[in-house]
Amino acid sequence: MSDTNMPYVPPAWAFEFHGHRCPFMPLGYRMGLLALEKLGVAREKDHALHVICELGEGHPQTCMMDGIQVATGATFGKTLMEKTFWGKLAATFWYPGKTPVRYVLKPDFLDRFGAFEFFQYRKQGVEPSAIPEAVTQEVIDWTLSLPDDAIYSVSERPDFQYQPPKGSFNRSICSVCGESVFERYVRMKDGKPVCIPCSGYKA
Amino acid sequence: MSDTNMPYVPPAWAFEFHGHRCPFMPLGYRMGLLALEKLGVAREKDHALHVICELGEGHPQTCMMDGIQVATGATFGKTLMEKTFWGKLAATFWYPGKTPVRYVLKPDFLDRFGAFEFFQYRKQGVEPSAIPEAVTQEVIDWTLSLPDDAIYSVSERPDFQYQPPKGSFNRSICSVCGESVFERYVRMKDGKPVCIPCSGYKA
Repeated sequence: MSDTNMPYVPPAWAFEFHGHRCPFMPLGYRMGLLALEKLGVAREKDHALHVICELGEGHPQTCMMDGIQVATGATFGKTLMEKTFWGKLAATFWYPGKTPVRYVLKPDFLDRFGAFEFFQYRKQGVEPSAIPEAVTQEVIDWTLSLPDDAIYSVSERPDFQYQPPKGSFNRSICSVCGESVFERYVRMKDGKPVCIPCSGYKA
Repeated sequence: MSDTNMPYVPPAWAFEFHGHRCPFMPLGYRMGLLALEKLGVAREKDHALHVICELGEGHPQTCMMDGIQVATGATFGKTLMEKTFWGKLAATFWYPGKTPVRYVLKPDFLDRFGAFEFFQYRKQGVEPSAIPEAVTQEVIDWTLSLPDDAIYSVSERPDFQYQPPKGSFNRSICSVCGESVFERYVRMKDGKPVCIPCSGYKA
């Protein structure tokens, strides 16, 4: 492992949060750190930075997004992270007043990455927590030995449009189930306010 | 603060992950711990537990979801957490072979909760990291002093259907942008494989 890239080693609590050791979370962590540096902003404490991930579901390497959450503070809970369901290993980082930046994993990096023993286990259905630690560490160390531009392509996206939703604290009670529902999601049915599941509407 | 509820105090790294101190992340953390106990499962290392959150965007208290990620290991990055965009402070916890359970914050709890000074700051647009620590701690301590059933309603949902998407490692190259795209998201245009953004299709 190159000492140069040691700042890209996630903190121990990042692995605790994530639940297992794997090479994808650290790749997202590094992507997140690079994006903050490129944007010239600090880790997000509150609600300014937004990350639009191009990943989807039912494919590997989504764990990257946990690394991005950890590095940037743009967490799913703060509604700062979303995904487009495009199945691409890319993310755009948007911050008010800054030129958005997009990072994507390079195809030739992915080909070399995919040749490691770790992926033989995964393709046999072995879950990451059950893969021998040395096998996982081998591929993590390999990624850490690479320079940034061997892994990521980066581009500025001055055309990228993003508008955070306007917030409101207003809350109502659904007239059917009696549960709380925030106003923007209240629907009307038979002249009464209801929540979406009680309305029967799709959205 | 009641000693009884001390296990519900999130670890320090949970606040570091989240980025600020607020009362919602701890409420989600506690909900997640209760759900694991109710299901009789351990914190998720890999990919079995799924949490379907009924929250949305543009409303407060979404930070709960970061607490749920921290407590349960059902993280967004592992594609184990999603939201329905219903604006409700509820989540259903699904685990293979177990009866799903749903937790929701009680409306009368929310009314008492909303009377704390913390919310005066928030409604004035003050971000959580800028609210005096004592003001935030007051409301966190109050929630910790309450028994579980003063905060949450819980219900078993034997009818709840969830089917994790079938996974595949197959990856292609978009014939337009040259980037990698996982097979389930490859589309065809003019006889060639493309990624969704290059296709111009909506999905």
